[in-house]
This record gives sequence, C-alpha cells and structure tokens, in this order.
Amino acid sequence: MAHRHHALTVIDADGFDLAKYDPADHGGIDRSEGEARTADAVAEIADLQDRMMANETWALLAVFQGMDTAGKDGTIDHVFSGVDPAGVIVTSFKQPTPEERTQDFLWRVHQHVPPAGRIGVFNRSHYEDVLVPRIHPEALHLERLPKSLAGPEIWSHRLQDIAHFEHMLTRRGTLVRKFFLNISKGEQRKRLLERLDQPAKIWKFQPTDLSERNFWEAYQTAYNQAISATAAPHAPWFIIPADHKWYARMVVAEIVVETLRDLNLKIPEPKSDLRAALDAAREALKAEAP
Amino acid sequence: MAHRHHALTVIDADGFDLAKYDPADHGGIDRSEGEARTADAVAEIADLQDRMMANETWALLAVFQGMDTAGKDGTIDHVFSGVDPAGVIVTSFKQPTPEERTQDFLWRVHQHVPPAGRIGVFNRSHYEDVLVPRIHPEALHLERLPKSLAGPEIWSHRLQDIAHFEHMLTRRGTLVRKFFLNISKGEQRKRLLERLDQPAKIWKFQPTDLSERNFWEAYQTAYNQAISATAAPHAPWFIIPADHKWYARMVVAEIVVETLRDLNLKIPEPKSDLRAALDAAREALKAEAP
Repeated sequence: MAHRHHALTVIDADGFDLAKYDPADHGGIDRSEGEARTADAVAEIADLQDRMMANETWALLAVFQGMDTAGKDGTIDHVFSGVDPAGVIVTSFKQPTPEERTQDFLWRVHQHVPPAGRIGVFNRSHYEDVLVPRIHPEALHLERLPKSLAGPEIWSHRLQDIAHFEHMLTRRGTLVRKFFLNISKGEQRKRLLERLDQPAKIWKFQPTDLSERNFWEAYQTAYNQAISATAAPHAPWFIIPADHKWYARMVVAEIVVETLRDLNLKIPEPKSDLRAALDAAREALKAEAP
Repeated sequence: MAHRHHALTVIDADGFDLAKYDPADHGGIDRSEGEARTADAVAEIADLQDRMMANETWALLAVFQGMDTAGKDGTIDHVFSGVDPAGVIVTSFKQPTPEERTQDFLWRVHQHVPPAGRIGVFNRSHYEDVLVPRIHPEALHLERLPKSLAGPEIWSHRLQDIAHFEHMLTRRGTLVRKFFLNISKGEQRKRLLERLDQPAKIWKFQPTDLSERNFWEAYQTAYNQAISATAAPHAPWFIIPADHKWYARMVVAEIVVETLRDLNLKIPEPKSDLRAALDAAREALKAEAP
C-alpha cells in the first residue's frame, strides 16, 4: 500500500496551485469500499500507535487545515477513533488569548507538540497565523508587535519560521504531516445550509462562517503561498479531496498508516539485564498460593 | 555611550576563538570607577524597563552562559537588581526532567521566553544542549531520540535550530543578547578553593564542579563552535571578561542599557479617544468630597 496517495502529496514548491486539485475526486471507488478501507486503516493505526508508545522515541504531529465545514472535526474523530486515548492528544487552536498575543505565534503551538511515543493532532494550527491576520489586518493589530516589525515582509518571515520550526521537530523524531481538507465552494454552500436547516447541526453555525466565505479567493491564495513555502520531504502537505467526507477520511487514515508503518517499529525486547529480574518475578508470583 | 563594548561583540562567525579574549581584561579602569558605572547603568535599566512595560511591544531575552564559578548568578543579581520584579523573569535551566527529555530541546526553553514588555533572563539555556551531551554522550542517550537521529550531525543541526529559533524571536520584537562570562582556568581554581574553604560558600560546591574542570578544553572548543554558529547581528554574543567580577557586571549592565536605549521608547501618550474619558474621570474625582 506504500505511497498509495502519491498524487496528493506536496513536498516542494514548484507551481503549487490548489485549483489543480479536484475536491470531488473519489479515486473511482464507491462509498462502501471506502468505508471498508477506512475501517482497516483505523484498526492498523491503533496497532501502530501501540508500538510507538512502547518505543517512546518517534512521535507524529498531524496538522489539519481547511475552510469552515471542510470536515476537520469529523475526520479527526473517525481517523483516530481506534487509538488508545492516552496515546493521542488533540489540540484545537482558537483565536489567540491576550496572553498568547504577547508571545511569538509559535509559542502556544510549541507547548502542544506531542512527546515521544504519542500522536499529536492539531485542529487548526500555526498556519492560521499566516491566513487570518493576512486577510484581516485588524487581527494583526491586536498582536503586541512593534510597528517596525509588522510590515508586509511579516508573511514570508512567518512562513520561514514555520518551515524551520517543523524541520526542528522532525530532527527530534516528530514526523510532521499536514492535511489540507480541500472542499469546493459549492459543497461549502450545501454544508452551511445543512447547519442552518437541521436542529442537530445549527449550534455549529456562526455568523462569521458566512462573512469568511466572502474571502474564499483570498484564502485560496494565502493557502497556495503557505503550502508552497512549507512543503518539504520531511514535512509534506497532503491535498485531501474533501467534498466526499468518506473519501477524505479514508485517504487521511491510509496516509497515517503509511507514515507509521514506514517506521518499521517492533515491540521492544526486554534488555538482557532485565531478563533475569523478569524470570525471578515470574517464579515469585507462581510460588504464591493462587 | 553607544557601542562602548564593541570589541567584545561577536556578530559573525569568521575565525571566532575564545582564546583571543583576555578573561582578566578590566578596560584600564579600577574597581571603584567600575562600581560607580555599574550603579548608573543599573538605575538606567530600571527606567528603560518601565518604558518597555508601558509600551508592551518589545521584550529582551538575556542569555547567560559560562563555566562553573564564572559568576552567572551574581551578575544576574547585580545587573537586574534595580528592575521592578514584575518586569523581569529569571529562569535557571537545570538537567532536563524525564518529561522534558520526551520533547525537542527547545521545548522547555520556548515556554520561558519573555512576553512583550518584559525582560527574560536565562541562567544557562538551550546552549547547554550543544555543550553537555556533546562532551558527555551518555547524557544524549537519556534523551528519547530515535537512534537514526542521534548521529554526529546532531550538533550542527541543533546549532542551526538555535539560530532559527532566535531569529524567530527577534522577528516578534524580542531582542536576543547572549553573554559568555569568560573566566580563566586559574581563576576557576581560586573560586573553587574559596567555595571549599568558606563555610558561607561551601553549599555551592558540587563534586561535578571538579570533574567538569577536567573537560575545560573540550568545553572551550564546544563554545567556540556554538558561538560561531549562532552569532548574528540580530542575536549577538558578548564575550565578557569575567576574572574581575565587578568588571563583568559593569560590562553586562552597560550592554543592557545600550540595547534598551537604542529602542528609543517613550512612555506612550493616551490615545485621543481616551483623553475625554480621562478628563471626565479627573472631574468626577475632584467633585467628590475630599
């Protein structure tokens, strides 16, 4: 199954353009086949994560970005539903707090990267800081930046800082995988209407959902630049066709499987100096009256 | 007084060698003149820090490194003794904890960088991670690194990561200034003997002080490489002659003054839309019976 989703993988900047990717792609398969493959992958992720925990060296950071309604929450829920909850840490990044605004934009993010042996999932991430304040300059003005450092070069600087930060993480053994859930504007319209029309979903609707929709093209441009500047062999982006939720979930799950499987981790053997102690413990327990 | 200590400033890597710097240098002045200048500088730091707090944009990160007994604790105590304690945050970095060892080496450091408006002081820092485990490989083995990522290239990678990290901080408005307190091996011998001989100082002596002394040359080499790789115009190193404690304190204090003075910060004026509210508040308070 290695690198099954190669066509969706971005590892360098040349000519990257979201418009070249079809949000409605479903790989020529149907929903029932997709759901069966997702179930297989979810089970395998649980097994692979056990091995990561036992080895406690490698970690995985899975970053999810996408427009409103792209399916970030649901994808995270489905893909990592089989994993021991102690082994996966999901962090949702909202608007920065006043305290967070007195620090560099990577400060709050760095605190939540996964430790060795764990999977960290970011529902939104440091990429918001090269999207939202770029499109809404008033958000940048809330940050405690000196004026001389808030010029237009801030975006290329932040993208460099992100690339360096992710490189640093990978050098410790934290695999970085970034998923852009790619929906079409028409599919977003449909999903927003569903939120408004269905009592069970209406709590999810926010007035800003509609106003942000007016900036669709600006977001696509900002994403193109962010993905171009930060895609690397050690920190690839994946452009996930997301108009079909079942397909998006399957693709993400299979990419996570491939990523972890490539580590080729075994459950570690007890060290030789521990074997005698383990044997003694077994004998002592056996000698007790049952 | 601008750039009075230019000769001690390192902003690029070419041919850097600690051996070229005299630890016993005292700038041709005597102790009483030095102490008077230190007192002036300490008072001015307090005033400049008030302005930083009021503006809440810029921050200062002062990093202190040096061999045992080089005078880090005493220098920090003297130089920042005049500052509002709410405006300065001193962090001493000891051996990493087991939790910290499951993260990248910058993780714990990043949590303690100063917010806008404050001075952060690091007593030891992320530079320990390119010194101690380099000289004592068993310390590196305690980290939860995958074996394939613990090869000899780790040192140049970490130095790159440090340079990138500090660059990122400066782009937010955190001035980074790094002080190497440069003592001679002879002066260290004298100070260690003092610790052993004086009841008031003996609590400071640790058996490792003596064993680390045996690695003096290895540390000098590691420092040469670290300083070469991370000195930059935006994040300079200062090689502080530290055989005379009074001189080291004066030089550090004057460099901090110059750094903050160059920001040219004023106490901010109230915004025009606030003036009317301030005037109304003044009138309301005056109208109350005294």
